Amino acid sequence: MPGQTATKESTKVLLLEKGTDIMLEKGYNNTGIMEVLQATGVPKGSFYHYFESKEDFGLQIINHFEQSYRDKVQLTIGNKDLNPIERLRAYCNGGIENFQTQKCRKGCLIGNLSQEMADQSEIFRKRLLEIQTEMTKRFVDCFEEAQKAGLINASYNCKDLAESFQAGWAGATVRAKTSKTVEPMQAYVRFTFEHVFKP
Amino acid sequence: MPGQTATKESTKVLLLEKGTDIMLEKGYNNTGIMEVLQATGVPKGSFYHYFESKEDFGLQIINHFEQSYRDKVQLTIGNKDLNPIERLRAYCNGGIENFQTQKCRKGCLIGNLSQEMADQSEIFRKRLLEIQTEMTKRFVDCFEEAQKAGLINASYNCKDLAESFQAGWAGATVRAKTSKTVEPMQAYVRFTFEHVFKP
Repeated sequence: MPGQTATKESTKVLLLEKGTDIMLEKGYNNTGIMEVLQATGVPKGSFYHYFESKEDFGLQIINHFEQSYRDKVQLTIGNKDLNPIERLRAYCNGGIENFQTQKCRKGCLIGNLSQEMADQSEIFRKRLLEIQTEMTKRFVDCFEEAQKAGLINASYNCKDLAESFQAGWAGATVRAKTSKTVEPMQAYVRFTFEHVFKP
Repeated sequence: MPGQTATKESTKVLLLEKGTDIMLEKGYNNTGIMEVLQATGVPKGSFYHYFESKEDFGLQIINHFEQSYRDKVQLTIGNKDLNPIERLRAYCNGGIENFQTQKCRKGCLIGNLSQEMADQSEIFRKRLLEIQTEMTKRFVDCFEEAQKAGLINASYNCKDLAESFQAGWAGATVRAKTSKTVEPMQAYVRFTFEHVFKP
């Protein structure tokens, strides 16, 4: 039988995962703590044992989401069995598959909250920017490796390319969410891999 | 002196403009009617004279925003004194200037509400998709004209390019909102005009 610590830990994870789920659909402001409690059956007192406030809950959800996102990125962008462009393709294909599985709903929590919270909370904005900036570094490394291998044009500025790729992919996801088809993501992949990610 | 009709019309426009302003910063769900009334000094009863509900107010704000957005697009993408690529550059430069003026806050109402509302309201989603699709057509026309003039690669699929451009520009705007600098928009413009919008 799990000890009390394990149970506590799993209650906290349950709250974070259900919170992520609801926040992905409804955003931060529109997610009520009561709704999360009702969906998990956790009493209010317990919630405040794990989280100081709704803001703390939101920030911990971001950290929790970031960890699972990092794991996905590691499996694709971190896969050294593939060349850098194949890794980017695996990343995009994984994103399309994932978005299809969730019926073109939700999207990326980091992108969603960046749009929703950047003007509303400096704490959220700074944390989200930190995550975006760290991701940019990973993409810059990947593009630099592609450039050294002669897979993309030698005159590209890899920082500008990484910024443009992150912007394009995030934007395509929002367009897919709006059209409720993955076609905008597929159009982005078709165009970019055929015409941009090349020598 | 303005007649009653003119006054009514200006009260409605006042509500729409203040509503747009608040909704651009806080989103649809987080904007309260009371806040709009307090900011404009319009009594509650008058509000419901012009708008059936908050949803109706939101939809009319979208229409109002779309009209002013169309006017801006007409001045850049519709400017036949410029070649198609120069028109796109004028559009992007205008966007950067505008975003700088508003201190990298707010962003594009269509993009913001698409992200916030696409999973929450079919009425909003369909209206926002309609606007996005109409804009895509304008960009497709512009790219086709550029292609005929030999300004962009003859092998580009202009529909995929227009989708990618709209996605990239929207994503760059959200990144600019998060970083509170226009650098992500500038990086997108530098890369795209130097390497993508060319023969």
